[in-house]
Amino acid sequence: MNSTWGKHLVYSLFGESHGPMIGITIHHLPAGIGLDLEALKKEMDRRRPGSSPHTTPRKEGDEFKIISGYFQGKTTGAPLTALIENTSQHSGDYDRLRDTMRPSHADYGAHVKYLGYNDYRGGGHFSGRLTAPVVFAGAIARQLLAMKGITIEGEVTRIGEKVREGFTPEEDMKRVIKEAMAQNDSVGGGLQVRALGVPAGLGEPFFNSSESQLAHLMYAIPAVKSVSFGLGEGFASRRGSEVKDEMFYEEGEVRIPTNYNGGIIGGITNGMPVVVNLAIKATSSIKQPQKTINVATGENTTLTVEGRHDPCIALRALPVAEAMLAIGLLELYLDHDYARRWQL
Amino acid sequence: MNSTWGKHLVYSLFGESHGPMIGITIHHLPAGIGLDLEALKKEMDRRRPGSSPHTTPRKEGDEFKIISGYFQGKTTGAPLTALIENTSQHSGDYDRLRDTMRPSHADYGAHVKYLGYNDYRGGGHFSGRLTAPVVFAGAIARQLLAMKGITIEGEVTRIGEKVREGFTPEEDMKRVIKEAMAQNDSVGGGLQVRALGVPAGLGEPFFNSSESQLAHLMYAIPAVKSVSFGLGEGFASRRGSEVKDEMFYEEGEVRIPTNYNGGIIGGITNGMPVVVNLAIKATSSIKQPQKTINVATGENTTLTVEGRHDPCIALRALPVAEAMLAIGLLELYLDHDYARRWQL
Amino acid sequence: MNSTWGKHLVYSLFGESHGPMIGITIHHLPAGIGLDLEALKKEMDRRRPGSSPHTTPRKEGDEFKIISGYFQGKTTGAPLTALIENTSQHSGDYDRLRDTMRPSHADYGAHVKYLGYNDYRGGGHFSGRLTAPVVFAGAIARQLLAMKGITIEGEVTRIGEKVREGFTPEEDMKRVIKEAMAQNDSVGGGLQVRALGVPAGLGEPFFNSSESQLAHLMYAIPAVKSVSFGLGEGFASRRGSEVKDEMFYEEGEVRIPTNYNGGIIGGITNGMPVVVNLAIKATSSIKQPQKTINVATGENTTLTVEGRHDPCIALRALPVAEAMLAIGLLELYLDHDYARRWQL
Amino acid sequence: MNSTWGKHLVYSLFGESHGPMIGITIHHLPAGIGLDLEALKKEMDRRRPGSSPHTTPRKEGDEFKIISGYFQGKTTGAPLTALIENTSQHSGDYDRLRDTMRPSHADYGAHVKYLGYNDYRGGGHFSGRLTAPVVFAGAIARQLLAMKGITIEGEVTRIGEKVREGFTPEEDMKRVIKEAMAQNDSVGGGLQVRALGVPAGLGEPFFNSSESQLAHLMYAIPAVKSVSFGLGEGFASRRGSEVKDEMFYEEGEVRIPTNYNGGIIGGITNGMPVVVNLAIKATSSIKQPQKTINVATGENTTLTVEGRHDPCIALRALPVAEAMLAIGLLELYLDHDYARRWQL
Repeated sequence: MNSTWGKHLVYSLFGESHGPMIGITIHHLPAGIGLDLEALKKEMDRRRPGSSPHTTPRKEGDEFKIISGYFQGKTTGAPLTALIENTSQHSGDYDRLRDTMRPSHADYGAHVKYLGYNDYRGGGHFSGRLTAPVVFAGAIARQLLAMKGITIEGEVTRIGEKVREGFTPEEDMKRVIKEAMAQNDSVGGGLQVRALGVPAGLGEPFFNSSESQLAHLMYAIPAVKSVSFGLGEGFASRRGSEVKDEMFYEEGEVRIPTNYNGGIIGGITNGMPVVVNLAIKATSSIKQPQKTINVATGENTTLTVEGRHDPCIALRALPVAEAMLAIGLLELYLDHDYARRWQL
Repeated sequence: MNSTWGKHLVYSLFGESHGPMIGITIHHLPAGIGLDLEALKKEMDRRRPGSSPHTTPRKEGDEFKIISGYFQGKTTGAPLTALIENTSQHSGDYDRLRDTMRPSHADYGAHVKYLGYNDYRGGGHFSGRLTAPVVFAGAIARQLLAMKGITIEGEVTRIGEKVREGFTPEEDMKRVIKEAMAQNDSVGGGLQVRALGVPAGLGEPFFNSSESQLAHLMYAIPAVKSVSFGLGEGFASRRGSEVKDEMFYEEGEVRIPTNYNGGIIGGITNGMPVVVNLAIKATSSIKQPQKTINVATGENTTLTVEGRHDPCIALRALPVAEAMLAIGLLELYLDHDYARRWQL
Repeated sequence: MNSTWGKHLVYSLFGESHGPMIGITIHHLPAGIGLDLEALKKEMDRRRPGSSPHTTPRKEGDEFKIISGYFQGKTTGAPLTALIENTSQHSGDYDRLRDTMRPSHADYGAHVKYLGYNDYRGGGHFSGRLTAPVVFAGAIARQLLAMKGITIEGEVTRIGEKVREGFTPEEDMKRVIKEAMAQNDSVGGGLQVRALGVPAGLGEPFFNSSESQLAHLMYAIPAVKSVSFGLGEGFASRRGSEVKDEMFYEEGEVRIPTNYNGGIIGGITNGMPVVVNLAIKATSSIKQPQKTINVATGENTTLTVEGRHDPCIALRALPVAEAMLAIGLLELYLDHDYARRWQL
Repeated sequence: MNSTWGKHLVYSLFGESHGPMIGITIHHLPAGIGLDLEALKKEMDRRRPGSSPHTTPRKEGDEFKIISGYFQGKTTGAPLTALIENTSQHSGDYDRLRDTMRPSHADYGAHVKYLGYNDYRGGGHFSGRLTAPVVFAGAIARQLLAMKGITIEGEVTRIGEKVREGFTPEEDMKRVIKEAMAQNDSVGGGLQVRALGVPAGLGEPFFNSSESQLAHLMYAIPAVKSVSFGLGEGFASRRGSEVKDEMFYEEGEVRIPTNYNGGIIGGITNGMPVVVNLAIKATSSIKQPQKTINVATGENTTLTVEGRHDPCIALRALPVAEAMLAIGLLELYLDHDYARRWQL
């Protein structure tokens, strides 16, 4: 498994759900950047389970410790590593899952790929818990982007049957999730994440298009099954005349108010907000009997996944998606003004 | 611009719409592979303009010439380069577009990024014409995959208002496109590409998930605005119990008949068909007046894009999407049996 | 700073001399490999200071703790991370070096590059202490190579004026180093590292030649200033007829007894032992006054580096060079039989 | 074979000695750079065979044609590809070498690696002819570096028994080579390449040290067997006090006149000239009988390599080494002022 990403900054993710700790190393951060550690903690808290009545009541201790690359309140330019201890795991819970593959989980593919040697406790390195260091890294990327006037925001646009129009989060969300929980079920959701203040000219036309790089990162989030930009699937049913992003100057600034393309055209940003939509599938761990296989006995069996699981993982995926957007845009930004800089 | 992709095989794309030729180099092909050149030509022809009455009548000479890496009918292991001459360009057509940015095209972002030095004729390196060498490379990847029992297929699932259910391609497609053309308009579409015979165990859970890598490549195709797997956006509105991919053994083989997840769970293939859905936007070049800017004068203006353009680019995007799926799966495949092989 | 290396396996190094801990993450190890932890410790001990009377008397606690990627005595396929605590640092010793650049050290270049934000205590991430996790990673690579019949060995070939011919390590080494110490001086050395059992066919002709990759890694070892293969500099003064590596079959095996080329010709291994020679410069920290600059005051000054320093760093560089050779060969090995495997 | 290199700029090399053409693609060049095509041709001519009475009389047509990435006299930012036609190959000369491995050539390693499918004519992709596109790329890198005040120079320091001190190139070189030729022999040599005007702060301490990256590239040149920096092997026999690079300010500038370290300390440049020394082995193709093997018959045999070969490849390797130094320094330069730029 190669859990690294990035060319300018390189992110190296490690750890398992039930090991002693998880963490991330960020290589090639610029030196001399002061980090707002309180803001980092707040981002971590947004993802942390137990932070809302609608998420799993497990208490994960998401306190990070920076062990390198940070000195006297500033980045040093050396690799920055943060560690997060695992405190609440109960390995015993998972032993019976060693050979029984949880349906709709990575268990079976991982079993084949790693010959049965993968750490099966809590999903091991496949666990959603590994998104904690991703949020940490994203929060740093966010602070770097903020220095350049770029901000990230996002929201839940759908929970189960509810769509964005007329969606009143607090009311509807509660009800939909409560209903699913009452029936030992889980529910999918939709997210939108946006970046404001993005300059025109980030990205490239082909293999390194902005959409390629951002979608790559979004699909690194467990449970994401659809990633689209701007109008997304809506483009398939529209005519060219209905989705034209006309441009004009206003007080010397370029305006493209329609922004059907979600801020990216031909792989390159056009100065408008970058708009990404995601579909998140329902948690696959539900307290209902599901048919599956036992790879040790070679027999068919039935599994009811017990334990505390998020009824709607989309809620906790939101800060992760924002983190990935920050990580991706920072990477794209680092080429900004490349041609101009060279000629100065 | 860095138009390379890949770790195991590395693809290096080059050329512009109106330069003397375009091409691609494929690095690290295994030696000793005989290529079916006729099959390569057929794939190229599927993408070629003028191959159907519904696509642009331009005649692009898509004849490729392999100039390295191929000797006595077999790959040599050295970089394989194919060149395709550009024969039908009329540079004069494009001169007036130097400063007038075509709306919904990359023109403006590219102008900012490359300080106005990008080749503006026919989109330059941004041109859809660059998908010709991609199809060439994909056809080679396809032949390699076929040696391992993996086949690629795909279809147009939607043209404009038409949806897949009850869609009768030949009839409806003709009519919808004809209507758009008659109104100087273009129309978007939907594609589905699939891979059959994919073994379980390809891909990884995080940054190198199967979905990450395949979506990365799909978003390198111009005009793609949505990429989803299996049920895709449908997951957002479903409960866990409605989308569970239950598993069972049948005659010693693992079966997952529902395949809601499109053959990939937790970033790793599960042995079921890999199913990717794409939304393609309508061609942005339409013979209707559009508001835009002139970057030389700094003034607002109106542009009607003349010339021969595909009324529905989705048709020609299909072989490109299949090519990208082949390229992506081949990359994922090259890690197949990594753990087992090491221990042999 | 990007302290990662590798394509097949990816190594991510982190930590500073005077931080709480240092470590390394190894990505993409094959799953199911049992590690000989005792052998790992022995390799670490070879590099550890204080392990011989000729090296620095500092006691570094080089005990590693594997925190991920290893479960029930086998690698899991997930990233394997090892941490090593720093126990004996005395930050106070270094405070006065903040602005006074130690001559022949990286201090000045680092100060310019990192705007003065680099951790100056004990060299920070530049410290030779970071070679401890490299030796850990190399020891794992070594165990993987041993599974394929490849072994690594090495020796000190020169200390100061002594050359390999007739060199009696124990006697001469002691004397030369003792003399240097007595004069508050340090002394350079030469190393040779070799790999036996390397199959023919590793490496490539150009940018990824075996020599390119191995030299790249050797020059990642602090204080290395020359890297050569086989006869090395000796080739410059020889005729073709004097250095011809003639080949013949003997009992069906290819023999090249002269091995002037050190097992690599045209970038590719030929089945003979891989032979690498290194020159290591004398420790730059000597208890003699040296002219240097103070970057805070902008004035010239004189510095005598106090503290416990290795009089001859070449001794401790030997296990590091062996580790790098193992890391490099493992990377090269992972392409072995690529063409043949594909066709099976 | 993966003949690509680079992270910021990516170089993709292709072609074989006896194919229709060879070439290189340079990705991610900054846009808007005017190239001095005459200077490019001159660099190409320096490497071209037949350019001196001491090199092979073969006439290689090294005329390059830029087919992409260059428009109206400036780089466009798109991949820049140059093609060079092969005009003088005589494939018939090489047919008998298909199965007889030339000693000290890559033939045997390549045969094993590529299962006998590699193009054996003139060494195929292994041919020294592939250094022509490298010189082309290096000449572009050189022009970019010159815009930043960095210049590259180099010289032959040794031909066979001659050493640099007192070496009078024109006289001695002629004589030594003439003697070797008269005896159907070839002769090795030494080169020094230097970069002047390099700012302090390029490179990193470990895997991406300046020495690592430059040595990596130097060892991509066929026939290079030793790469060292500054005093190189001389460090092995010197004491710390003998090789101390003391520093002082002079009129506000940092001076390090001794420059034993060749401009790089701890992997980072220190503002002094970068000095690289290379040993080049004698051409392995000599008109003397050499023992070798026939891989088709499995028998031992004797080979006398006929044809026109350089008696001293070191002469033509000089412009290649300068090109590689330029390519490497440009890559290192692109991180220059990274920390400072971010904070602006």
